[in-house]
Amino acid sequence: MLKLYYAPGSCARASHITLHEAGADFELQLVDFASAEQRTAAFHTVNPKGRVPALATDQGVVTETPAILSYIAQTHPEKQLAPLDDPFMFARMQAANAYLCATVHVAHAHSRRSERWADTAEAIAEMKRKAPEVMAQCFTMIEDNLLTGPWVLGDRYSSADPYLFTISQWLPFHNLDSKDYPAVHEHMNRMLERPAVQTAIALEAHSG
Amino acid sequence: MLKLYYAPGSCARASHITLHEAGADFELQLVDFASAEQRTAAFHTVNPKGRVPALATDQGVVTETPAILSYIAQTHPEKQLAPLDDPFMFARMQAANAYLCATVHVAHAHSRRSERWADTAEAIAEMKRKAPEVMAQCFTMIEDNLLTGPWVLGDRYSSADPYLFTISQWLPFHNLDSKDYPAVHEHMNRMLERPAVQTAIALEAHSG
Repeated sequence: MLKLYYAPGSCARASHITLHEAGADFELQLVDFASAEQRTAAFHTVNPKGRVPALATDQGVVTETPAILSYIAQTHPEKQLAPLDDPFMFARMQAANAYLCATVHVAHAHSRRSERWADTAEAIAEMKRKAPEVMAQCFTMIEDNLLTGPWVLGDRYSSADPYLFTISQWLPFHNLDSKDYPAVHEHMNRMLERPAVQTAIALEAHSG
Repeated sequence: MLKLYYAPGSCARASHITLHEAGADFELQLVDFASAEQRTAAFHTVNPKGRVPALATDQGVVTETPAILSYIAQTHPEKQLAPLDDPFMFARMQAANAYLCATVHVAHAHSRRSERWADTAEAIAEMKRKAPEVMAQCFTMIEDNLLTGPWVLGDRYSSADPYLFTISQWLPFHNLDSKDYPAVHEHMNRMLERPAVQTAIALEAHSG
């Protein structure tokens, strides 16, 4: 059986939603960030990078959101969670997921995890100050170029949608309002209507 | 025909090598970073994010290295540049590519492109100072956990290999020596023996 290591509200939510979309047989394993469980030797045997999400499978552990999302889609092909038979559209999904992972999540992390890239109080404060500006740039790019609508890939839902949804939910942390990005805002509301999304949010809310 | 927009020595090299590995029919299009061509309106019609690589196809443009690498592998299946029929191993390749994209390349970018995340001279200087330390952490992780050897996925070559190779070549920029990471060092030398790698490097050297 699959086991998803996660923290509530983290980027692991994209994988969590996708497991529900797939109807996968899985269990949730909370990683307690409050007690820094992600930095323990025990968790490092699961993911030496000390991050969530991590998906334990019968063959071994898969890490990194874009990899987990494609893995779930490929192992549940009947659910059509990715354009598996169309290399160009699959590439478009992958490009969206790579942008969310390497640019948007990284922009967010400069507010929450600035110490990854600087030690001084001044530099850390400056990164935190600028993070909302960079997040706003990212969401302008998403609004204008990435989100075709109604879904990231246009008419077809894919695993890029729960990933965009998950990161969109972080906008208030930066005092940004999804209403300033109408396509993103509508996408978020569209996602909130999906049973898999409702289930994932409810389960994460009761895990703390 | 495919057209790869690239800059010499940039992360686009991973896609460039993979096009040669695939025996793809493609042309190279230099994007002149010296004159900031990536920030021109003309280039933004290709990639609104203003980055390389970008791969123009008959169906549209694909951006983001992990997406381009999988696209080339999927459209040239006979070359076996990715474990296309094995979701777990495909996920392992994707996880490696996501880590290289979102963690290792980002660590590098804090030296070269620090102004993305801070405005003050102090913060930018501090990020540049710390970047080699973060790159060293990343390469220790790669040495100990990511690079099974002889290739990233063990016995089989995949598109994660040219990506690791490309970023490994940036170590001297941070005054880091690949010899301090023996598996990485051997991987780099193994890659340099491949005709596709030699061709890509030679073509990029003559493009300036």
